[in-house]
This record gives sequence, C-alpha cells and structure tokens, in this order.
Amino acid sequence: MKEISKLMDYREDVKVLDATLRDGGLVNDFFFTDEFVKDLYRANVKAGVDYMEFGYKASKELFDVTKFGKCKFCDDEYIRSIVGDNDTDLKIAVMADVGRCDYKNDIHNRSDSPIDLIRVATYLNTIPAAVNMIEDAAAKGYEVSCNIMAISNSQEGDLKAALDILGKSPVDVFYIVDSFGSLYPEQIARVADIYLEAASKYSKKVGIHAHNNQQLAFANTIEAVGDGVDWLDGTYAQMGRGAGNCAMELLLGFLRNPKYNVYPVIKFIEKHINKLREDGVVWGYDIQYLLTGLLNQHPRTAIQFTKDNRKDYAEFYNEIVAQD
Amino acid sequence: MKEISKLMDYREDVKVLDATLRDGGLVNDFFFTDEFVKDLYRANVKAGVDYMEFGYKASKELFDVTKFGKCKFCDDEYIRSIVGDNDTDLKIAVMADVGRCDYKNDIHNRSDSPIDLIRVATYLNTIPAAVNMIEDAAAKGYEVSCNIMAISNSQEGDLKAALDILGKSPVDVFYIVDSFGSLYPEQIARVADIYLEAASKYSKKVGIHAHNNQQLAFANTIEAVGDGVDWLDGTYAQMGRGAGNCAMELLLGFLRNPKYNVYPVIKFIEKHINKLREDGVVWGYDIQYLLTGLLNQHPRTAIQFTKDNRKDYAEFYNEIVAQD
Repeated sequence: MKEISKLMDYREDVKVLDATLRDGGLVNDFFFTDEFVKDLYRANVKAGVDYMEFGYKASKELFDVTKFGKCKFCDDEYIRSIVGDNDTDLKIAVMADVGRCDYKNDIHNRSDSPIDLIRVATYLNTIPAAVNMIEDAAAKGYEVSCNIMAISNSQEGDLKAALDILGKSPVDVFYIVDSFGSLYPEQIARVADIYLEAASKYSKKVGIHAHNNQQLAFANTIEAVGDGVDWLDGTYAQMGRGAGNCAMELLLGFLRNPKYNVYPVIKFIEKHINKLREDGVVWGYDIQYLLTGLLNQHPRTAIQFTKDNRKDYAEFYNEIVAQD
Repeated sequence: MKEISKLMDYREDVKVLDATLRDGGLVNDFFFTDEFVKDLYRANVKAGVDYMEFGYKASKELFDVTKFGKCKFCDDEYIRSIVGDNDTDLKIAVMADVGRCDYKNDIHNRSDSPIDLIRVATYLNTIPAAVNMIEDAAAKGYEVSCNIMAISNSQEGDLKAALDILGKSPVDVFYIVDSFGSLYPEQIARVADIYLEAASKYSKKVGIHAHNNQQLAFANTIEAVGDGVDWLDGTYAQMGRGAGNCAMELLLGFLRNPKYNVYPVIKFIEKHINKLREDGVVWGYDIQYLLTGLLNQHPRTAIQFTKDNRKDYAEFYNEIVAQD
C-alpha cells in the first residue's frame, strides 16, 4: 500500500490545472461565451485551483478564425479581457501543439503577456520540434510543461529516450498523457515510475492528464498522485474530448490541502454545464469510448459514432476490431 | 506495484457475478420484462459470467407483490420459467436481506430449486441474524456468501469481530460492500487486507461489490482483484441503485481469462439498456451522488434529489452537510 496516510494529509507540491476550456473546447469548437469563461475564472480562483488553461495557441494560418471560438487562439488581448491584470494566485496556461502553433510570432514575452505557463503538446516522433518550442518559451520567460501524447502505444525504450532529451531542455514538467484512456492504474504506476526516475535525474516535475474512456480518469489521477506525480489536470464535469477527463469536482473532493474548495466548482456546474448539455454539446463516458479505450485506439472513430447518433455498439465494435 | 504481470495473465479463482437484476431492480421496482431477463441470462451464459443474481428473496409479508416485479421475490418457479433446468455453467444467485426475508419458508432445499448461491446481506449490527440465515442456507445445500453493507462508516475493530464470527459459520465468501461509494482504491486495499486475513484464517473467499458515486466502482474492483479478492460483482451498463455499480462491460474487458467475452454484454446493452433509459429509468454517476459519496452518507437524499428532478447541486450540498 502506497501512502495511505496521505489520504488524511497532503503534499504541498501538488498543483491542480483546470483544462476545461482547452480539452472541453474540442467538443464545442471553443465557442464559450465570455460569461462562461469569466465565471470559470472566478470559480477557479475561489476553488484554489493553481493553473487555468485558456485553450490553444493555434496557428491562424492553419485554422480559420471564423470557425472557432477565441479559446482556440488565446490572444493575449482576449485573455486580458477576462482576467484583467490577474491579480490572483491562479496562473494562466495555454497549450501549444507541435506543428500547429506559430510560436515564434504568436507567443510574446511573458512580461508582455497574461500567460504564465506554455504547455507544449507533442507525440513521441516530434520531440526535437517540441524542444525548439520549449526553448523558445523558456527564453521568453514562461514556465513550460511538455505533454507527451498517446503514450499507451509507445515503447518503453522510446519513452525513456524522449524523457532523456526533454530532461536536458529547460522544460519544468513532464506530463503523462493517456490520450486513448486505455491505461489501468497498475500501468499508470509503471509509467509514473519511468517518468519520476527521469524527473529526479533532471530535477523536473511530473504531471498527468487522463481520459475517461474506461471510467478511470479520476482513478488514474489519484493513483499517480499516490505514486509521486504532482501536477494534476482536471476539467469541470469532466468536459473534454470524447469520454472526457478527470472531473475537477472529484479531484478537489479527494485532495486534502485546505486551500482547495469543491463548492465553487459545484456552483459553476449547476449554472453552466447543464445548459451546455441542453444546448446539445456532448461528451462523457459511453460504450463506444470504452471500446476504443479497450483496444488502445485513438477515439476518433468513437467521436464520429457519437456525432452520427449511432447506437449500434456491437456493429461498431466489429468495425474497429477489423481496423487492426 | 502489486501484480502487473496479472494484467497479461489471470487467476483461475476469479469469479464474476452479474447483479443487474438485483441492484438494477432497485431503480425500476424490479419490473423487468421476461424478454429482458431471458436475454440477460443468455448473454451471461455467452459472456462466461459465473453467477447471475436474479434479485431478492423478499418477504411477501413485508412487501406487496403487486407493487414489485418478480425479481423482488425470486420464486423458484419464476426462475425456472427463465432458465429451465439451467443446463449451463452459469450459476444462479439470489439475495436474502436480514430481517426482510422469510428464509425458513421461502428458501427451499437446493435439490428442489434452480438457485445455487444465497447471498445474505447484513449490516454490522445484525451479524448473529445473518449467521442464522447462513446456517439455514448451508444446511439446505446452497453455496452462501455474506455481504456486509455500509462498511465505509464502520470501525475496523467491529469489522474484524464480525469477520471472526462469520469465519466460524458455514459461509463461503465474505463480501466487501462499499454501499455509499465513498471508498478510494487505497482504502479498498486496506479493507481487502482485513478481509483476506480473516478469509485465510477460516478458509473463505473474498468478494467485492462497489458503487460508482465517485466513478470508482470499476477502479475499486480492479484494485481489489489485484489485492487477491476473487469474487467480483458487475452490472450491465452499471445499472444499480443511485450512481450504479461496476460496469460488467468494463470488468470483462479488463479480465484476461479467455472464458470471458465482452461482446454479448455489448449486444445486450444495445438491445435493452438504451430502451430502459428512454422509458425513463434513471441511474448513474451525477453530482448529487458524488456529494453523498464524498461525505460518506447513504445515497437516499441523492436518490430523492434525482426523483425530484432537481439540479440545484449547491443547495443540495448545503442540505446534506447540515445533516451531520
């Protein structure tokens, strides 16, 4: 048993990051109202959340700004319109995807920006490009994390090699990302060991971003924090791509640091999330996501199944098994 | 790390019990159609499930037979109308609640009944009455398990004393029951240790029945099986009281014994479960259940909140905090 005493106590180093706008934006093309975003910001401040991710710094060359909401691009001016000078303990994060972000132009110096943390998202085969972005962000004064996506189908040796490269970069946090929602807690423990060993060697921190395909996003997150992972991603009502993420309301209920408070999260969900669902925005655990998770596949087929309002789970299962 | 190798292999002693009709019956007063029950029986046979719980052996003195479906009472004749001579590897179980079952009259000799397993359900304060029922069932030739409910608010010393009493009875399986859905995997590991120690002393087996208030029913079940717990309860689409149970489709996807097959479960869900939901039968994770789980309370207030179609989660939270 790992650290049962911690169920009564807490570790100061644990940080909670709210990824609602970023991962949640993937299910409504980032069309959040300003009221939604302002209320979310206020709720995060009251709840004691450490970082709030506003969305992506997506390239306006690659993506049509008329087809997405503002959180897809996260202009500094937009963030400022919500947070003003952000005179709070809540730090602001954005995600920058390798190959889909004009980071040299679109990410300004931290001293001129409301943003505190750049989260560089990469697959294992683009680590050198990620390092370039990390170096750029660090040189501009930001805290930097690196999210290595889709690790559930990567080889352990490749993962270790990637962490060795990233360890020598100025990145602050290595993120475990279970993109397919296919890992079980025992596997998270094993992956966390690999990350923590590299983090210890290079004086980095480790984070986790989980998906709920097998209803394990929360369980995997608390497994990881028990193993020594410090940075924890959650989203309000688990809003996120496909089956969604680790629920902020579950996570804050679990953590014992008295600075965290679940009540503002509940209030926000009551006011905003039910309305989103009534408006037809769809996310969360369902059989099609379980099946792609079980098969360790990207959920894109399950997302399409959901969009098509299909309910023929058995036929879907036949289809995705046959893909391999 | 407990037994990662087992993620590739399996333990012969693991048994899966389908509790859909029994725990699921709590949300529709057991009004299942014969077609539903027959299809579920066939699906369980095909899926390799070990035991199928048909419902309760409820007292017809205490409960009006016109107000509940047949699975509330589980007459031998009714079960036979579904399973015939049950010439399969699937065994049949029923639950008998202490104080709510006329077991002397309503439970006949196993040789005259289609039932194989009597599951005696008790709270800690009625253990001697449970022992009487266990002895009766064992004398009539049944396999017998004992479900100790609501252990999350019991004292460890009381639990150990209860297991010592039960250990001396002819019961075959001690069941861990997280009635309030309030336990975290680390706590399940601790509870499993207590149960397994007593089970080892008295040559019994240990089982787990989880609830999904904090989306941990599946995670707690696979935590338990990793710790050495052999009997695992699941329900199709997690159908069960309040937030529901461990999903059979998740559980069979996880277990590696080739005798298990998730496909018939998916087929059944496609045919029957969506229809149940369309007909207005409601269960599953929601904020109100998270809150009672977090506070380690019985979900009855959350069930009422659900019935009343309330969505004012924050006010509900205030109400249930004030109850203490």
